[in-house]
Amino acid sequence: MPSVDVTWLEGLPNHAFGATFGLPWHQGQLNPSQTNFSCLDNNGVDVPIQTRILAYWQDGSIKWTSHAIAGSAKPQDGYNIQANTVVQCNASLSHETKGSPQLIVSQDHLKSVIRVQTGRIEVLFPISGSTIIQSIKSIGGKVTGANGRLVLLSQSDPIMQSISNQHEFKSQIDEVVIEQSGPIRAVIAVKGKHHSNTENDDSHIPWLPFVLRFYLYANSSCIRMMHTIVYDGDMNKDFIRGIGVRFDIPLQAERLFDRHVRISGVSGGVLSEAIQGVTGLRRDPGIEVRDAQFRGRPTPSLETWESSVSSRLQWVPSWNDFSLTQLSADGFTVRKRTRSTCSWVNIPGGTRSDGLIYLGGATAGGLAVGLKDFWERYPTGLNIRNAVTNAGEITVWLYSPSSEPLDMRQYHDGLNQKTYDEQLDALNITYEDWESGTGTPYGIARTNEIYIFSLDETPDQKMFSTLAQYIRAPPILLPTSETIYQTKALGSNWCPTTYLNSLCPKSSTILTNLEFLFRFYKSQVSQRRWYGFWDYGDIMHAYDNDRHTWRYDVGGYAWDNSELSPDLWLWLYFLQTGRADVYRMAEALTRHTGEVDVYHIGAHKGLGTRHGVQHWSDSCKQARISNALYRKYFYYLSGGDERVGDLLQEVLDTDTTFLVLDPYRKVRKDKETYKADSTRLSLSLGTDWAAMASAWSIEVERRGSRWKEAEKKLLASIEGIGNLANGFVTAIASYNIQNGSISPPAQDPLNKGVVQISHLSAMFGLFEVCADIIDCFPSPVTSKFEHAWLEYCRYFNGTSEEQISRFGLPFGKLQLRQGHSRLTAYAAARLGDKTLAKRAWEQFYLEDRYGPEDGYGIDTPWVSNPVDTEKALVRLDEANWVSTNITALYGIAAIQNLALIGEDNSN
Amino acid sequence: MPSVDVTWLEGLPNHAFGATFGLPWHQGQLNPSQTNFSCLDNNGVDVPIQTRILAYWQDGSIKWTSHAIAGSAKPQDGYNIQANTVVQCNASLSHETKGSPQLIVSQDHLKSVIRVQTGRIEVLFPISGSTIIQSIKSIGGKVTGANGRLVLLSQSDPIMQSISNQHEFKSQIDEVVIEQSGPIRAVIAVKGKHHSNTENDDSHIPWLPFVLRFYLYANSSCIRMMHTIVYDGDMNKDFIRGIGVRFDIPLQAERLFDRHVRISGVSGGVLSEAIQGVTGLRRDPGIEVRDAQFRGRPTPSLETWESSVSSRLQWVPSWNDFSLTQLSADGFTVRKRTRSTCSWVNIPGGTRSDGLIYLGGATAGGLAVGLKDFWERYPTGLNIRNAVTNAGEITVWLYSPSSEPLDMRQYHDGLNQKTYDEQLDALNITYEDWESGTGTPYGIARTNEIYIFSLDETPDQKMFSTLAQYIRAPPILLPTSETIYQTKALGSNWCPTTYLNSLCPKSSTILTNLEFLFRFYKSQVSQRRWYGFWDYGDIMHAYDNDRHTWRYDVGGYAWDNSELSPDLWLWLYFLQTGRADVYRMAEALTRHTGEVDVYHIGAHKGLGTRHGVQHWSDSCKQARISNALYRKYFYYLSGGDERVGDLLQEVLDTDTTFLVLDPYRKVRKDKETYKADSTRLSLSLGTDWAAMASAWSIEVERRGSRWKEAEKKLLASIEGIGNLANGFVTAIASYNIQNGSISPPAQDPLNKGVVQISHLSAMFGLFEVCADIIDCFPSPVTSKFEHAWLEYCRYFNGTSEEQISRFGLPFGKLQLRQGHSRLTAYAAARLGDKTLAKRAWEQFYLEDRYGPEDGYGIDTPWVSNPVDTEKALVRLDEANWVSTNITALYGIAAIQNLALIGEDNSN
Ligand SMILES: [Ca+2]
Ligand SMILES: [Ca+2]
Repeated sequence: MPSVDVTWLEGLPNHAFGATFGLPWHQGQLNPSQTNFSCLDNNGVDVPIQTRILAYWQDGSIKWTSHAIAGSAKPQDGYNIQANTVVQCNASLSHETKGSPQLIVSQDHLKSVIRVQTGRIEVLFPISGSTIIQSIKSIGGKVTGANGRLVLLSQSDPIMQSISNQHEFKSQIDEVVIEQSGPIRAVIAVKGKHHSNTENDDSHIPWLPFVLRFYLYANSSCIRMMHTIVYDGDMNKDFIRGIGVRFDIPLQAERLFDRHVRISGVSGGVLSEAIQGVTGLRRDPGIEVRDAQFRGRPTPSLETWESSVSSRLQWVPSWNDFSLTQLSADGFTVRKRTRSTCSWVNIPGGTRSDGLIYLGGATAGGLAVGLKDFWERYPTGLNIRNAVTNAGEITVWLYSPSSEPLDMRQYHDGLNQKTYDEQLDALNITYEDWESGTGTPYGIARTNEIYIFSLDETPDQKMFSTLAQYIRAPPILLPTSETIYQTKALGSNWCPTTYLNSLCPKSSTILTNLEFLFRFYKSQVSQRRWYGFWDYGDIMHAYDNDRHTWRYDVGGYAWDNSELSPDLWLWLYFLQTGRADVYRMAEALTRHTGEVDVYHIGAHKGLGTRHGVQHWSDSCKQARISNALYRKYFYYLSGGDERVGDLLQEVLDTDTTFLVLDPYRKVRKDKETYKADSTRLSLSLGTDWAAMASAWSIEVERRGSRWKEAEKKLLASIEGIGNLANGFVTAIASYNIQNGSISPPAQDPLNKGVVQISHLSAMFGLFEVCADIIDCFPSPVTSKFEHAWLEYCRYFNGTSEEQISRFGLPFGKLQLRQGHSRLTAYAAARLGDKTLAKRAWEQFYLEDRYGPEDGYGIDTPWVSNPVDTEKALVRLDEANWVSTNITALYGIAAIQNLALIGEDNSN
Repeated sequence: MPSVDVTWLEGLPNHAFGATFGLPWHQGQLNPSQTNFSCLDNNGVDVPIQTRILAYWQDGSIKWTSHAIAGSAKPQDGYNIQANTVVQCNASLSHETKGSPQLIVSQDHLKSVIRVQTGRIEVLFPISGSTIIQSIKSIGGKVTGANGRLVLLSQSDPIMQSISNQHEFKSQIDEVVIEQSGPIRAVIAVKGKHHSNTENDDSHIPWLPFVLRFYLYANSSCIRMMHTIVYDGDMNKDFIRGIGVRFDIPLQAERLFDRHVRISGVSGGVLSEAIQGVTGLRRDPGIEVRDAQFRGRPTPSLETWESSVSSRLQWVPSWNDFSLTQLSADGFTVRKRTRSTCSWVNIPGGTRSDGLIYLGGATAGGLAVGLKDFWERYPTGLNIRNAVTNAGEITVWLYSPSSEPLDMRQYHDGLNQKTYDEQLDALNITYEDWESGTGTPYGIARTNEIYIFSLDETPDQKMFSTLAQYIRAPPILLPTSETIYQTKALGSNWCPTTYLNSLCPKSSTILTNLEFLFRFYKSQVSQRRWYGFWDYGDIMHAYDNDRHTWRYDVGGYAWDNSELSPDLWLWLYFLQTGRADVYRMAEALTRHTGEVDVYHIGAHKGLGTRHGVQHWSDSCKQARISNALYRKYFYYLSGGDERVGDLLQEVLDTDTTFLVLDPYRKVRKDKETYKADSTRLSLSLGTDWAAMASAWSIEVERRGSRWKEAEKKLLASIEGIGNLANGFVTAIASYNIQNGSISPPAQDPLNKGVVQISHLSAMFGLFEVCADIIDCFPSPVTSKFEHAWLEYCRYFNGTSEEQISRFGLPFGKLQLRQGHSRLTAYAAARLGDKTLAKRAWEQFYLEDRYGPEDGYGIDTPWVSNPVDTEKALVRLDEANWVSTNITALYGIAAIQNLALIGEDNSN
């Protein structure tokens, strides 16, 4: 009876409002029709779970499962999930326990509302209109929140000229889908667009499509809301002023002095205020009154108060509105006012708010609503309005209207670059690939993670503080690295630190270096303020030693946009170490690169944008950047994050964009006459095919809705590559978009063999997808393909003589030697060739050749240094020898080489 | 030959752009007509000085002098100023040294411009128009800045409704005055109002009067600008959006890659950018080019650059605009853009900027302009515009238009308080004295300190960083506490720490307590973010133990507005200790309370506002808050700060406001029929007379323009008080506003003696002004007055029996016993009465009686504690036993008692 242990990434959490996690299984181990799952906690107590199969091995056995556990007042340190063999069943069935809380999803007879009952709260989701959540009701019958909706503010000019150029929008629902529903967890997806808030107002068309996913768990009073928008505006006319999520809080049942506000401060800090405060007054209402008010408990009956206070409550101001505004990553301000015609009063602010806000009554309760990564995603805000009225209002601003409008226009006007030749010449100096009209944000997306806590009563300070901690780092259950490794469900090109002999000098040094690189980039995120609405999660590409700054303003050297696969580096490093901080950084990167750097609608849909000053500014739109492989790790580890699931499917059609936007348009010789032919497209066998093959193979293992089509294309392309005279060395082949078949390039109709090599081909996931295909598909299908791939692996870093002997030509001087050492290592491992293994390490260490473009060599200092105070705006550390290209490749190669060929004891 | 040493408050500065300092002299020591002054530095080298007499003793001898020294490339650790007796001279003449740099102030033949030549720069001040500074030219002939002007932006609604409600104003000069002029230093005052920027625009009348004072020193390239505005808008219609100081920088001579920007970051941090950066590019122009550009030196001739760069400069963007925005005290953001139709690009920001910005050319030079207390006075900003054009532009925003408009409306709507009785009832609960129409900001002021450095060439990082340090803490020269004490020029009711026997347990404990109190308030300023455009400098009144917050939102408990003289506490503590941090905190408090808490124009001119949620919100407008005494210490120590000099004179007419706003309007029995009579006004002999007497006596010793009138009123009032049967115990007497005479109150026409005591009477400077009068005026004039004062001192804390025996009535239970112990101590010292001295210490220690309103008693813990994380927004310390009333009085009494009666060894 196979079983897997899971534990909390960051230790036992204060709260457990339900959790979902992914589990990997060995190939051939579990038959989906003869397996069910159960769960025991650390004390051996049966825990009900809801199971879903995320992926299958090629043989049809279960590869990844997703399991949900309900909310619990007493979360345990860990859980053990058991796969039980049964005669006949559906593995996805839930395992329930007698009397355990059950989630119920139902619809009223008019089908106008979806009702979700968690056993703790009842939530009504209208299926049309502009209200997203009609109400949230506790089991006690209290309505703690109502009329949940989105708010969008925009204006037509970068600087407001007239109120008639300002627009206000509401969330208009197009479709509500019950994506998942079971006894433990439900996922409700609400899709729509932002429509003008004014009836019959045609001053602005509906825009900014949204997908909201609500996650509800049995026995939980928390709603997790994943909020995704896609920018479909005109960057020259649509300047977003505010993006918010708003709820009404019924307050009519509560007296003003029993209404409470809680606002998150720094690292668990809490502002506790009553709408009508009775502490600090000239007269004392009594210690019981003051104490109750501060804690948020109902104050004693008014008759018991000191009459010196109770008789004068009419003279004590009540505070209608509160705002916390985080306009930079370093500071927030807080203020309140008695009414909109009176001035604000400043409340002492601070540095970085945790991002949670509560409004409610001591007896009536209310909602706490918060945004994960609140200050990292500045400019953000938390608002309360109308707290003196019967319907208070909470707004969480994902983009604060107190900030200046969001300007997404291009950062330069093209500098008179008109012809492709001029653009290529400019590329030679700023490394930016510019082209008029292509640097558009049309189609990029952003996903925010919001938490809504329904609270029966005002939370005390400790409770609110721990809820804020919850949203800062929502608790995650994970199996160990060792478990994942053993199943090979995320490949076998990495292995856990514990399996490495850290006493051996090579491993030990490499592990120290890997730790340095991670720690350094983590420090750079913080010191360089790589934060902001669009920016957070990404890292930068290259460093300017002269100015002691990353090249945030130099064309192609600024935002990294997954160049050379830093996403893979971080995920492999997480797999190797199991470290929480690595997971969080990789998660933030995945949420960024998957959304912001990729087009989700429009002409470029499915493509990503090359590294640049703005995430969308470069004209080079490429499949390599939207590579599904970069999302795969997070997808499975998170138990199948639904938004990332969407992203994985979106890129299945990336190949169609080649018809619209020829990647070779600036450089091909026949650019004047070239017309894309959907049956004979030029396709890079490195970056493009790797991206397509990743998308296909993930769709196949997920058994997605298009998996048969994906499998057909994948197999056709594998066969085609295997049949090319020079395999991957051909570099660019002809691709049939209809069926995925690959044939020799136009200039080699007879398949005599083209020799063309790019140092970038294997650096965007080609290695991983090839290894995965060879691992997963049966040998007859892959034998020629494997041969082609092993040839590429062996010859890329081979000698000129070897290259000439096989291909008739030398490959010439190639860069990224260190990053390619893993290809040699792969060939060594696959072929059991110790000479190749030795050579792989030599290449990794750049023993035979060392240029800065090859990797980190023997004279790499592996330290960072503080920058002199006056040479930078803030206290900084720098490592002027670091580049993100080299870091990503060093990280990946180090992890993979150690796993593939281990210590080379002869060295 | 008397002489005084001065040293730098914070040690030897990096720069010395000229300095002015005040020196005290013994009574009778220096005859102004037979004294001149000279100066030697620490090495015995003669240093030219410019001297001005600030104050005279009653005998006509010199009490305070002000001395200016020129800028110096090599400032010395200290200077010795010698007073030389000569046969006949004018003490104010400057002491010059052969060949020393001389400042020249001149006017052109049309008298349209005032020219100031410092030997380093030539500055032209137009005497009309809207340009404040026409040009700043270096001795080399480079125009480093031009067209200096003020910028004011406002709107008519709190939230902008239409661009037609937005207004832009320029500085229109009414008057330019050469206030001081000599070989070392000149002070040019420019006065005017902000006029609409559009010709013939009558949408807004001229408003927001300004006084700008420019300080220039010989041999200095720095201009110090004191920028004062008075708010004379309608708080419901005039919402300030931006207040700025702007200069043009001629850039036509400089190529784009040789134009530079420097922006201050955190604690000496500097952002160094070129308008067209050539570092971090794909091709290397050569190390000499990159290095020169980063340092700000001229790059080598273009022909020497690598042609791979020089041939492609047209593809390298140039950055036209830069902005640093400090919208909270904790965080700033920085950004730049290539042009206004393109988006901004974020530059990584930080926490707290030093507030200096530079634009200029490597060879052409430019200006660095900065604001002192930049982040403390948030929302602030530093802007550069048009750096790509021939005329770049620097703006320092004293109020940043990136922030929301400045809303000065009242913070509540009156809560339906209509009658005086209702208002008095409300006072009983919120401690706020509210009255419709009185909580107006009309007439309050703010002074900002700006530095303009003319730079011949782009400063390197170290230079710019030290200039930023300079404006953070402009170097101050001061004599020692011992010197000041010996002269008695600031009274003899304090003495330096060095004169106290710190081995004696009493002194030792008191000094430790004083250190605790100062350190605690310093920490509270920082932790509680007592920062902001209006707020910075002030402290809060009372603490809310329940909420772990100062009562920022509770009526009369919020901003302190000099309640019970914390200004005196800090200045006396500075005098006692000579500590730099105490000086800086006292300076900030003085700049705040003297400007923001006081009305400078309008119906309330000369009065201050009682403590409250807004500095102007309380209806209680009082002379005690605008007391000149609170500004006197800074005035003399600073060598006669001209703005504070204005404030000292302004309050000479405070008595006339009693005709307009009767301080007793809510409580007097005849309030229905009362009409103010200028010959028989009710005047508090405590708070009101103390304020008037301070103003008069300072005007007298300064020999101000109204000193004769002031002396007449002062002497008349002294005589009147001396003649009252019960002296100060009368509490309120009749006052003749014309001549200052004081007569018995209306209810006691025969001067039989009224017994009325307020615990507040002596707590707002009465003690200090009485002691000063008795010290300074000859005995025949003051003997009856002294008798009256000593009676008050002896009986206030006396026994009921004693009180009855002298006045026929007991005083009843009085608060602030500890604060009044200094009155007993004064009587003890004056009368040489050891029993009284013993009693004073008993009262100080509250040995006989102890309530929380009396002072800090034996069970005071004298520690602060960290607040639990979840009980406050940010990490905080609190001392819930602290109140500012008690702190100020403890501080003053401790310092004065130690000086007056020293150790009581019998105890
Ligand atoms: Ca990016
Ligand atoms: Ca104040």
